[in-house]
Amino acid sequence: MMIGRTSDLILVAGGAGFIGTHLCTALLEAGHDVLCIDNLQTARTANIELLEEYPNFSFIEADITEPLPRAVLSHAPRISRIYNLACAASPPRYQANPEHTMLTNVIGTSALLQLAELSGARFLLSSTSEVYGDPEHHPQREDYRGWVSCIGPRACYDEGKRAAEAITFDYARLGRADVRVARIFNTYGPRMHPDDGRVVSNLICQALSGQPITIYGDGTQTRSFCYVSDLVDGLIRLMESEMDGTQPVNLGNPEELTVRELAEMVRDIVGAPDDITFMPLPQDDPRRRRPDISRAQEWLGWSPTVRVRDGVERTCAWFAADLDLAKATPEAVAAE
Amino acid sequence: MMIGRTSDLILVAGGAGFIGTHLCTALLEAGHDVLCIDNLQTARTANIELLEEYPNFSFIEADITEPLPRAVLSHAPRISRIYNLACAASPPRYQANPEHTMLTNVIGTSALLQLAELSGARFLLSSTSEVYGDPEHHPQREDYRGWVSCIGPRACYDEGKRAAEAITFDYARLGRADVRVARIFNTYGPRMHPDDGRVVSNLICQALSGQPITIYGDGTQTRSFCYVSDLVDGLIRLMESEMDGTQPVNLGNPEELTVRELAEMVRDIVGAPDDITFMPLPQDDPRRRRPDISRAQEWLGWSPTVRVRDGVERTCAWFAADLDLAKATPEAVAAE
Repeated sequence: MMIGRTSDLILVAGGAGFIGTHLCTALLEAGHDVLCIDNLQTARTANIELLEEYPNFSFIEADITEPLPRAVLSHAPRISRIYNLACAASPPRYQANPEHTMLTNVIGTSALLQLAELSGARFLLSSTSEVYGDPEHHPQREDYRGWVSCIGPRACYDEGKRAAEAITFDYARLGRADVRVARIFNTYGPRMHPDDGRVVSNLICQALSGQPITIYGDGTQTRSFCYVSDLVDGLIRLMESEMDGTQPVNLGNPEELTVRELAEMVRDIVGAPDDITFMPLPQDDPRRRRPDISRAQEWLGWSPTVRVRDGVERTCAWFAADLDLAKATPEAVAAE
Repeated sequence: MMIGRTSDLILVAGGAGFIGTHLCTALLEAGHDVLCIDNLQTARTANIELLEEYPNFSFIEADITEPLPRAVLSHAPRISRIYNLACAASPPRYQANPEHTMLTNVIGTSALLQLAELSGARFLLSSTSEVYGDPEHHPQREDYRGWVSCIGPRACYDEGKRAAEAITFDYARLGRADVRVARIFNTYGPRMHPDDGRVVSNLICQALSGQPITIYGDGTQTRSFCYVSDLVDGLIRLMESEMDGTQPVNLGNPEELTVRELAEMVRDIVGAPDDITFMPLPQDDPRRRRPDISRAQEWLGWSPTVRVRDGVERTCAWFAADLDLAKATPEAVAAE
């Protein structure tokens, strides 16, 4: 029943994280009211400050492994869309408390789906290419079941997301909620956290600060890097599409390059010295990743538009300005 | 710290279920104090009544998706072993409320591991051959990562168990608990619930009641059926082994037969008519399953001793007596 709904509200769980802030910004710019909930585990304070400049933005600090606060539930009648982007996404962050990572994906997704059922809101789960594990088939199609170790150090995240997908599709099968599931491949761009251990931010920050560039493994492992504005466009298209929601959709850039190529690209753009330090590859690190995005192309009319070289240049420029700003105001950074 | 521990207590979550009651009986017979917690979702009342005849048995009704009752937590200092067997295991039962199935595996396992950490107890997770999904390799070894759909109707159970394994091994990696993980293949025997939709109980009950025997699919799919006394012996050996607990161990009978062979065996034993009705195979039903038990043989000195024909005969005899009893006292059955 929609009675009592005045103007719609979009809930973004994890809206203070890297992709979350870009999604919130895009929704706010389009004139939507946005309610962000976040536990601030991996958020940059500066990201929230940017969002708080919008009058149609509100923020509630909450951890979705705990029961949702009354302040969130009180908005239920107005909520028409729920994006679940809540979960640390880089291995050092999500492995710091693996049980919390698992519970964020399982309890958190369950709680937000219950809210979607209560509100009659459509629900979008941000899942991940990690559900494919270290894949045996390239590029990865959505019907590939993956090659995931459920007992290794990445399992809290990979299996957590697989479990979150399972719950989400059960809600759809039972008619409890209208759902969408995006499997997000590597994404990069401005507003990444410099310390979260993702390859793009690592390489750029090392190059900008004059440290030797570090590559884990021999650098021949590949990734497909999607610029964040493309990804956010894909998420919104998926949420607003009238497709059958009972299938996941890959969102990523099929332009594949090796980690070594990326490192050299960053070095060229920043003008850093030639040094590259090679470190051991972490356990279960995938050797290769590339999305098959034909489903997104066909169903959503979506494909990435930002070339990797352009996106990396923009990201380097943003990090350079951010690091300069940090040098200029060290107390502001210390306060983060 | 073991200070204050008087005599040890073994907690069995799901101890009123099919395997659970056999495990409790074996532990009670060995002289242990056993505390069973169970939500009675799939339990046979008669099973609990059998256990309550032992003075060293106690029972607390609890659902492990909810916070553990104080009555359980108050025993923490005495608990030295925790077996987690809690979860409906047959597709019709676990699919009736898929969200609850997932949460039982994830929240429940997390809660029991927290209790293990608090108690200093060793923890055993009853995982499943379902973590291998519809396997591409035969027999299944523990290092096979499986072929599981995380979006299908079996995912609430399969992915729930994979997630439970992930949490369990994270506790071990972080030194929070001493853990064991058993991957249990199809198990059968007396005290199965006649209505839970598992193939052995289905076939026997149909044959005994003179109904046509039903096979889903063409009957060429295989299973490996382990008699419950063998399985319980394996569980206790695994719990008490001083092996490195950071690897799962398959427990099952490698004697593989087709569902059709099983149906014909049951028909022969019971002396039922020749009719077999073929029904469509449910979605994602595995075509083949057979454990590689070399790890259990080597690490635990365990392998099954009851031949399938013998076990099926014993099970048929038990069901025949149970059904006769039910006919004799219909009001007792209605009260269940």
